[in-house]
Amino acid sequence: MILKYFEDIEIGKKDTSGEYPVTSEEIIEFARKWDPQPFHIDEEKARLTPFGGLVASASHTTAISFWLLNRAGKGLAVISGLGWDKMRLPNPVRPGDRLSLTMECIEKRESKSDPGRGILRHSVVIRNQEGVPVSTFETTTLVKRRPASRSSGRAKPTRPSPEE
Amino acid sequence: MILKYFEDIEIGKKDTSGEYPVTSEEIIEFARKWDPQPFHIDEEKARLTPFGGLVASASHTTAISFWLLNRAGKGLAVISGLGWDKMRLPNPVRPGDRLSLTMECIEKRESKSDPGRGILRHSVVIRNQEGVPVSTFETTTLVKRRPASRSSGRAKPTRPSPEE
Repeated sequence: MILKYFEDIEIGKKDTSGEYPVTSEEIIEFARKWDPQPFHIDEEKARLTPFGGLVASASHTTAISFWLLNRAGKGLAVISGLGWDKMRLPNPVRPGDRLSLTMECIEKRESKSDPGRGILRHSVVIRNQEGVPVSTFETTTLVKRRPASRSSGRAKPTRPSPEE
Repeated sequence: MILKYFEDIEIGKKDTSGEYPVTSEEIIEFARKWDPQPFHIDEEKARLTPFGGLVASASHTTAISFWLLNRAGKGLAVISGLGWDKMRLPNPVRPGDRLSLTMECIEKRESKSDPGRGILRHSVVIRNQEGVPVSTFETTTLVKRRPASRSSGRAKPTRPSPEE
């Protein structure tokens, strides 16, 4: 259900998610399929790496980020993600971690090509249960404007494009 | 098995992967768990969006990117991913697509903190079977230097850090 349009998000607005619990079983299962590096799938070998134990694949952390973004941004009228920037992994994600997300709107502008759309940029930080950041990035998202503010006679919606 | 160290990767070197086939079943299954937007999980509702049909979640495309990166970069002595930049999604990923990846080394430097390590930056493009780009980004990866080139008496390996 759509509760929040472009007009409802102010610069500086912060939203937070609930927690996502990370298990060694899921770290191994996810990485076996998508990113089978020894430090993601083999506890013995992981102990001998600089990490000193199993750590989640960045692809797994990204999937968890989307899970958390869906909750923190619940009800936002998303048309499409357009891009991600400056993704960093300042600390590893380990079994037993509980991750939560804070997103802050840092930029908003109307679409140049479609008056029914707007673009939001958010700064995102994911922290573990000790408040230690494990992933930071910026997202750019194409969202709907509130229908009442649309101009009439709008053309058929076009496919989302990075040139929005 | 490690076949390629920091010293083996030259700027301008290109590597390519095999293909990853994308199915509607996997698009829906992945997104149900991680990113349950209607245009990722519901064919009927997806038809009514600007995409005109099911498209893969960017989190799914990212997971597939890692699968392809493991193949294109096979044997590279990875210690840790450090970050991703400028990720864009110029075109949607749809059921039936076959994705492949090209990575090109665009920068390399020795670690400031550890003579046994080096940092590689790659420009990555993922294309579908028609050669249309669906995801582009840059990766920064911490890798081992060839053991023979290490200085002796090195301290115990430290945890990978973004300040490398």
